[in-house]
Amino acid sequence: MSEQDTYPQGPRTTPTRLRERAGYAVDAVHAVLDEGLICHVGVVVDGEPVVLPTIHARVGRTLYLHTSTGSRLTRLAADGGVPVCVTVTLLDGLVLARSQFHHSMNYRSVVVRGRAELVTDPAEKSAALTAVVDHVVPGRADGSRPGDAKELAATAVLRIALEEASLKQRSGPPSDDDEDLALPYWAGVIPVALGFGPPRPATDLADGVVLPGHVAGYTRGTADFGSASPPRVE
Amino acid sequence: MSEQDTYPQGPRTTPTRLRERAGYAVDAVHAVLDEGLICHVGVVVDGEPVVLPTIHARVGRTLYLHTSTGSRLTRLAADGGVPVCVTVTLLDGLVLARSQFHHSMNYRSVVVRGRAELVTDPAEKSAALTAVVDHVVPGRADGSRPGDAKELAATAVLRIALEEASLKQRSGPPSDDDEDLALPYWAGVIPVALGFGPPRPATDLADGVVLPGHVAGYTRGTADFGSASPPRVE
Repeated sequence: MSEQDTYPQGPRTTPTRLRERAGYAVDAVHAVLDEGLICHVGVVVDGEPVVLPTIHARVGRTLYLHTSTGSRLTRLAADGGVPVCVTVTLLDGLVLARSQFHHSMNYRSVVVRGRAELVTDPAEKSAALTAVVDHVVPGRADGSRPGDAKELAATAVLRIALEEASLKQRSGPPSDDDEDLALPYWAGVIPVALGFGPPRPATDLADGVVLPGHVAGYTRGTADFGSASPPRVE
Repeated sequence: MSEQDTYPQGPRTTPTRLRERAGYAVDAVHAVLDEGLICHVGVVVDGEPVVLPTIHARVGRTLYLHTSTGSRLTRLAADGGVPVCVTVTLLDGLVLARSQFHHSMNYRSVVVRGRAELVTDPAEKSAALTAVVDHVVPGRADGSRPGDAKELAATAVLRIALEEASLKQRSGPPSDDDEDLALPYWAGVIPVALGFGPPRPATDLADGVVLPGHVAGYTRGTADFGSASPPRVE
């Protein structure tokens, strides 16, 4: 791989433990950012941390956050930019070991650290909002009405240059100690993934509007349940 | 409701926007903390925010975080406590409106602000780890080997008193503007919930170990897909 294919590994993106679970490959980092429906954004307010769920979208080496004009995060970003940490976590399985100590989860989690700045260019803002809509449901931007000037003004978009990012992950079966293998406890993995139910149309759709392909065929993620049967969901 | 049934509403737990989506009822806050498999913990390190996924468990009015002895968060907590923000977000649906502006998500998200302290009492630590195991898979603590002294020493547990917490949520159909109702775009909700696949046993289980009820019957969450058919999952 060329030098361009990994994010730089620095002290801020090297985990303090289980470093073997960390990765910096750009494709792998981007795959997690793209699969995650939401992120959790951390920002320092009055010296203390605040973490809020937010919808994001990646465009090349830029991460956009959809916020609102009145939020604290937006106000801080508008005032010259603000340090943020954006974390996207995908759960892949519950790892049940014989020992409680080796219980774990299979997951992929990307941590992005950088500076969030307010997007002020109308063209960039409009393109970012299109990307956010298509991030959640690919094809949706073409299947909905774009924002008008008033709506764009009521929405805020933040930009973070993707320069410092890392992926941490775990996969596979539980790793019990040898001396525990004979214990009479079941061990294994319960696979986890997001499930999507049958779409519920609004009750006031215009005459003749049918379920579009981007909704009817909606899926997401790379979970492999190893079985033809879909997962149980309550 | 008595005074004890809600968390206090203060400036730090009042959203800057969409305040009608916020709530402070203790039962509702606890339900989200209990349903969420993981949380995202924010802490300030060298003046900048860091957000990491973590497994938690609630015991009464205390939230415990399962961390490791070497993590930055643990070291900060051990040194007299550290301000944290713990956020648990559950996705319930993708909300597709005719207008891109009214696209949204149905969700429940709890934000806890407080001080994380290292648990040093062995009995409290042991009980907290049991709670963490049972938080992820109820009944699992009885179906696995408890930690020994060495394992407990290699694990860190942080305690946060639940004193400042709020719930923000959205539910229901998209809310398009009246003038958009006649547009030829589909609108509605794609329900979302975690799905769980068939358990995958470790290949080296001891003879005679069978799938226990706490694994075979594992479900989670309150999602209602409004249909007998389970969600599609890739």
